[in-house]
Amino acid sequence: MTNPVQAEILKRVAEVFDKQVPFHNLLGMDIKRYDLDGVEVSIEMKPELIGNIHQQILHGGVTATVLDVVGGLTAFSGLVASRDDWSVEELKNRLQTLGTIDLRIDYLRPGRGEIFTGTGTVIRAGNRVSVCRMELHNERGDHIAFGTGTYMVG
Amino acid sequence: MTNPVQAEILKRVAEVFDKQVPFHNLLGMDIKRYDLDGVEVSIEMKPELIGNIHQQILHGGVTATVLDVVGGLTAFSGLVASRDDWSVEELKNRLQTLGTIDLRIDYLRPGRGEIFTGTGTVIRAGNRVSVCRMELHNERGDHIAFGTGTYMVG
Amino acid sequence: MTNPVQAEILKRVAEVFDKQVPFHNLLGMDIKRYDLDGVEVSIEMKPELIGNIHQQILHGGVTATVLDVVGGLTAFSGLVASRDDWSVEELKNRLQTLGTIDLRIDYLRPGRGEIFTGTGTVIRAGNRVSVCRMELHNERGDHIAFGTGTYMVG
Amino acid sequence: MTNPVQAEILKRVAEVFDKQVPFHNLLGMDIKRYDLDGVEVSIEMKPELIGNIHQQILHGGVTATVLDVVGGLTAFSGLVASRDDWSVEELKNRLQTLGTIDLRIDYLRPGRGEIFTGTGTVIRAGNRVSVCRMELHNERGDHIAFGTGTYMVG
Repeated sequence: MTNPVQAEILKRVAEVFDKQVPFHNLLGMDIKRYDLDGVEVSIEMKPELIGNIHQQILHGGVTATVLDVVGGLTAFSGLVASRDDWSVEELKNRLQTLGTIDLRIDYLRPGRGEIFTGTGTVIRAGNRVSVCRMELHNERGDHIAFGTGTYMVG
Repeated sequence: MTNPVQAEILKRVAEVFDKQVPFHNLLGMDIKRYDLDGVEVSIEMKPELIGNIHQQILHGGVTATVLDVVGGLTAFSGLVASRDDWSVEELKNRLQTLGTIDLRIDYLRPGRGEIFTGTGTVIRAGNRVSVCRMELHNERGDHIAFGTGTYMVG
Repeated sequence: MTNPVQAEILKRVAEVFDKQVPFHNLLGMDIKRYDLDGVEVSIEMKPELIGNIHQQILHGGVTATVLDVVGGLTAFSGLVASRDDWSVEELKNRLQTLGTIDLRIDYLRPGRGEIFTGTGTVIRAGNRVSVCRMELHNERGDHIAFGTGTYMVG
Repeated sequence: MTNPVQAEILKRVAEVFDKQVPFHNLLGMDIKRYDLDGVEVSIEMKPELIGNIHQQILHGGVTATVLDVVGGLTAFSGLVASRDDWSVEELKNRLQTLGTIDLRIDYLRPGRGEIFTGTGTVIRAGNRVSVCRMELHNERGDHIAFGTGTYMVG
């Protein structure tokens, strides 16, 4: 069960990532869901995100961006879930150090679609470093890309 | 030496990547140089590219985007350089199939700076698949990130 | 359904990988199963495979080796499955070109156990290049490592 | 300059990795050099290391093993170099936590040759996590493979 401290920090992080990160706003990224069970980030296709005008597909950099954001949020929610006695202060400090160490993207098929949704899971949960796997699907459930990322969480 | 067919295709590709890719325009990406010796892609810091408002640093997705574009262009120029008897038609067909298979980004330090420049080299040149390494530096020469990408070229 | 040509080539490949690759014999690698649904490769712990005498755990290079072999076999079975009109000759030629382009290993936990089993799935099936994800578990079902590999298949 | 504590720990680590790791002995791995400037690990071709009997080339798992060992040693020497006031005790504790988080291998060309040498450099030096790049060459200077690894160092 999510305790109030966990709930508060996740809500705040979701708000920041949804509204206060300039590059997320430029792309139109939406944090649809963010809780201890994971994260759902979506992005709507729009002309500015296109990487190939003939094929009308999402630029690979958009895919990488969404998967990196999903990975960071997933790593952080895994950290939040790892203890139920965090103080808000401690979690805020941890958030300061949250960062991507390395990221691998596997592009599976062209980014065709109207709405793309990224999800992730923690595969190695650490007190300092976490590793996550991420996926991007379009609205028809086509699997567009996989990601694997190593994140600093402390 | 670069022959006229090679020069023409590289010039055309540079123009397309510089002006006609919507996502490159959104970010403000510049193809500064593109010839058989390599590519130089730059991007100027602007508020919309920021990933962390407190630290005023480039979003990791921008870094990934620039390095992926550099890698694709590097792989393609390596292909163009591999033969001096290409026809324009053949190279246009190859360009259609150009795509990222997988990409690794290593984030070395926070993306602080005014102008970020990406460069790359081919480390495995193939007729179907090429592997490139890419780097991103800021205007002071600080090394921001490394990339390693596997590209389909035929 | 598996046709006779597919069955024959997979059987032959399994025999070669099981018995005729010197490094597989050195490690004691076993191809337990190899069909169109996938592959199962196992390795029994023995003193020579240890990477850390105090902790008595599998060397990370053994993990990488098993996952790379699993990935190559998975990519090849995916190619075999992609058509039902292959000739034995064609598949033998494809086997000649089978090779790892790049490989990522994520080490999740120390390699403790008696028997380690690697399995894999194709995540991008191509006529030239395939991408696979692989996993290594011990006999208790503990997840030791993930792999992601890009393979040349033609 | 290397101080006595640094010199002692590096000498001891080199001895352990050279003589007391069973899997290194099985492969015949040699720690040729290990100091604050880096590491040189070599391996001599022998029949048991072969991955393809027709082509008589090194198994990709051997390449991965050598590059992973080089990366771990490189990360640790970077940590040792980062301070000149380490105690032997502190460094021994750090060594206990040394481990590979993730590893990427780029296979550039077939592993032909008599003696293979791995070298590495730190590209991101951290107090907890370091990222290294590694290379494997044969005795003629042919570049066989690149590696990129993320290592826990504390």
